[in-house]
Amino acid sequence: MSKNSILAVGSVALDSVRTPFGKVRDALGGSATFFSASARFFSPVSLVAVVGEDFPLKYMRRIENLGVDVSGVQKVPGKTFRWKGFYDFDLNTAKTLKTELNVFQTFKPVISRAHRNSRFVFLANIDPDLQRSVLRQVKNPALTACDTMNYWIENKKKSLLGLLKQVDVFLCNDSEARELSGEFNLVGASRWLLGHGPRLVVIKKGEHGVICFSRDFVFLVPAYLLENVFDPTGAGDTFAGGFIGYLTRSARLSEPVVRQAVIYGSVLASYNVESFSFDRIEKLTLQDIRKRYTQFRKMTRF
Amino acid sequence: MSKNSILAVGSVALDSVRTPFGKVRDALGGSATFFSASARFFSPVSLVAVVGEDFPLKYMRRIENLGVDVSGVQKVPGKTFRWKGFYDFDLNTAKTLKTELNVFQTFKPVISRAHRNSRFVFLANIDPDLQRSVLRQVKNPALTACDTMNYWIENKKKSLLGLLKQVDVFLCNDSEARELSGEFNLVGASRWLLGHGPRLVVIKKGEHGVICFSRDFVFLVPAYLLENVFDPTGAGDTFAGGFIGYLTRSARLSEPVVRQAVIYGSVLASYNVESFSFDRIEKLTLQDIRKRYTQFRKMTRF
Repeated sequence: MSKNSILAVGSVALDSVRTPFGKVRDALGGSATFFSASARFFSPVSLVAVVGEDFPLKYMRRIENLGVDVSGVQKVPGKTFRWKGFYDFDLNTAKTLKTELNVFQTFKPVISRAHRNSRFVFLANIDPDLQRSVLRQVKNPALTACDTMNYWIENKKKSLLGLLKQVDVFLCNDSEARELSGEFNLVGASRWLLGHGPRLVVIKKGEHGVICFSRDFVFLVPAYLLENVFDPTGAGDTFAGGFIGYLTRSARLSEPVVRQAVIYGSVLASYNVESFSFDRIEKLTLQDIRKRYTQFRKMTRF
Repeated sequence: MSKNSILAVGSVALDSVRTPFGKVRDALGGSATFFSASARFFSPVSLVAVVGEDFPLKYMRRIENLGVDVSGVQKVPGKTFRWKGFYDFDLNTAKTLKTELNVFQTFKPVISRAHRNSRFVFLANIDPDLQRSVLRQVKNPALTACDTMNYWIENKKKSLLGLLKQVDVFLCNDSEARELSGEFNLVGASRWLLGHGPRLVVIKKGEHGVICFSRDFVFLVPAYLLENVFDPTGAGDTFAGGFIGYLTRSARLSEPVVRQAVIYGSVLASYNVESFSFDRIEKLTLQDIRKRYTQFRKMTRF
């Protein structure tokens, strides 16, 4: 177990996506997959998830080939979690056509003895009851973070609020921040969220960038400007991967490190949306990341 | 005539606005008014516009008291241009209830001998035929800029394209950039626009900030983060005022000056939306502007 190892718990999925630029069927997806593929540039990642018997072996190999520890991915009878959706020219909003939970319906993450010592924990968007059960199993982590979605805000708000009390970092998109806090203005929403537990609130606004709030500072960044956005699926989790990955350098959430982490997260997300699935991230090098980081600075400095 | 004097041609209006936080009737508005109230912090401004007999003398005094030269504002028989609209909680989109052109319908800007020597010209959103007639009257300006709106894109596209060939800076919002260029992606849209004349294209995205494109660089900025947005009316023209005002320091559009100008424009716009009409901008000091500039840097640096 490396001292900076990240435990990532969430979904591994088969995504069928249509965008104005093409379509894929049963492509490798899932919140924890995108997160891991991105975070591995900065730190060792152990993935905990469940797949069905139909999950292609070559997909598992692709994840393994990224250097991600897949020993925590259970294969169980039944079909893998599937998401089917599309995007119009306004690529900021996914339209869901079908969600099949399949094996995810009965998923109970059991964290192995080795993984219980992880210093960093990322709880991707799953039932907050399960996110909390993971936290109960991990011993004294240095930093914990979670994401969520509107479904849990509407159906498991109490459990989600319990989870918020236990995490250091809460990531969500702007509409989720508004819905959970009941505040339309994002400054008000973030204050509400910071008052409910986390030390850091990161609001993802898709093509409009990110706002990061702590009790001591606020950090605003536009999204990296791209001419060709191909498929935004997984951008939020890819952002989280770069962000949490970089934060393994400072579990104390020092301000300069947090700011850098937001930029690295944004850079990773910008690469992710250039292809379907995680095809681009898979081929990415640290050099590519550094190059776009420099470009990001040029685009925003004054 | 100061060597950095800006000639601002556009509308002076009476606005009736409702937002979730209050309402005003026949408040002082208009694109050229907002522009002038903002640009005057950086450079002397001469306003050219038309008002009706009903235009309150106290409003004219308010504009004059800002130090704006109002010798080019004609008072003619009839009623002043009026706009009536409202905003919901999504303050980024104005909903128009009524537009009464009134005296604006027959407005033909005649530029006085003194004003013809202006080095800087801002053509606020009016009929592109009129914007071009102003340019014909001005002698050899150092820098010209214009704004527009969807109505002219739809009804006077040819004239607007003629105007684009003649201006150095084109400002518009994101939906206008898309509509005029036929390109959904803003990088594509800006390339199209730069190919049609201007040396600089500034795309205003409201609460999502600004993207500024030249042939040599791109500059992205988020909007200054505010907890209380009261009334966004005039934000775009207030931005333009700060932006063009600051550019009087470098008509050559040097990159560092352009970047600073975008920030000053954003700072002015952020103050404008904190009150109805230009109530906040009217009371603003250079110290306030500098303070928020520093704050902006803190919010965005990495």
